[in-house]
Amino acid sequence: MAEIETIQNFLDGLASSAPTPGGGGAAAISGAMGAALVAMVCNLTIGKKKYVEVEGELKEILGKSEALRAELTGMIADDVTAFNAVMSAYGLPKETDAQKAARAEAIQAALKTATDVPLACCRACRAVIDLAETVAQKGNLNVISDAGVAVLSAYAGLRSAALNVYINAKGLDDRSFAQERLTALETLLGEAGARNEAVYEVVKAKVN
Amino acid sequence: MAEIETIQNFLDGLASSAPTPGGGGAAAISGAMGAALVAMVCNLTIGKKKYVEVEGELKEILGKSEALRAELTGMIADDVTAFNAVMSAYGLPKETDAQKAARAEAIQAALKTATDVPLACCRACRAVIDLAETVAQKGNLNVISDAGVAVLSAYAGLRSAALNVYINAKGLDDRSFAQERLTALETLLGEAGARNEAVYEVVKAKVN
Repeated sequence: MAEIETIQNFLDGLASSAPTPGGGGAAAISGAMGAALVAMVCNLTIGKKKYVEVEGELKEILGKSEALRAELTGMIADDVTAFNAVMSAYGLPKETDAQKAARAEAIQAALKTATDVPLACCRACRAVIDLAETVAQKGNLNVISDAGVAVLSAYAGLRSAALNVYINAKGLDDRSFAQERLTALETLLGEAGARNEAVYEVVKAKVN
Repeated sequence: MAEIETIQNFLDGLASSAPTPGGGGAAAISGAMGAALVAMVCNLTIGKKKYVEVEGELKEILGKSEALRAELTGMIADDVTAFNAVMSAYGLPKETDAQKAARAEAIQAALKTATDVPLACCRACRAVIDLAETVAQKGNLNVISDAGVAVLSAYAGLRSAALNVYINAKGLDDRSFAQERLTALETLLGEAGARNEAVYEVVKAKVN
């Protein structure tokens, strides 16, 4: 499989001392794997006689999960861009007072983006968890474990991205901006852990 | 980034109605991302003056995490092979009694492998969790969030692979083989959840 070779390349980059790709990219991939597995269960349920009653609902979920997957895949690159912008801002000259002020402003602007990018990842992962829950309840029993893996991946992605929100929000001078993001994050994390466990138990009961 | 394009290809395969790659491959990738991020934190700690006291320990962890990453990456293909062997066995002819007996035997042999492959993934992910814990405690503070993402990824990989152990063990006629694997699995899952939370809290405290 050619894909495995290039996944290997990505993992080599992750393991290396290069700062990107890092945890932010891994978070986006976890979320995207979750979305892809929701889609897989939908694709293996839609069109099956036994599941005709849930077909309409799963078609809708398939559309949403594929949109979330595209969004999350895009975030792998967004994370690199946001990180590089922060690094570039720190690298600006700081000899004169004017330079210092411009540098500080650039750092703050870059940190705001670097807070919003992982927060968007959290939001998308939270949405994947909700889709995985329905799919775990109604999807084709033969592939129900994939719904379980979907929720676990999305939940890991959510919490992983949350760590990057915390770090970058910490450096923000604009505390009301930071607080708004941290409040939104707590709402997203809110019942996610309980939902993750509930879906896992539904799936575990079906595979045992 | 060329890597993203091919990760996209892998995710397309995951989302499609093709049975592989599926949750087993996603579990192995989660574990491998965890191992890669442990290695990244080691690589960004080793050689730094401030961390000279932990350098020996982190060099050892780097070696172990890279070995686990290679093992976990190999499991993406192992999962496909094991799944295909089960499918091939089910496809064997079953007209004569001799054919039925040969088919049943082949199915059981394939299910045994399909139980042991995800169990090996669980074992490797559990080992990554332990390495992530040390790295979260002693690694370079600037990249400590990556240790948090490492533990979350590895824990998701462990529980994801566990679902595949359950499914395949369920179909085994050899109950003592199955029970032995399920007991080993419970040991691996044992304190993993508590360790995952403990490491996450260590990291969260450092990034807040």
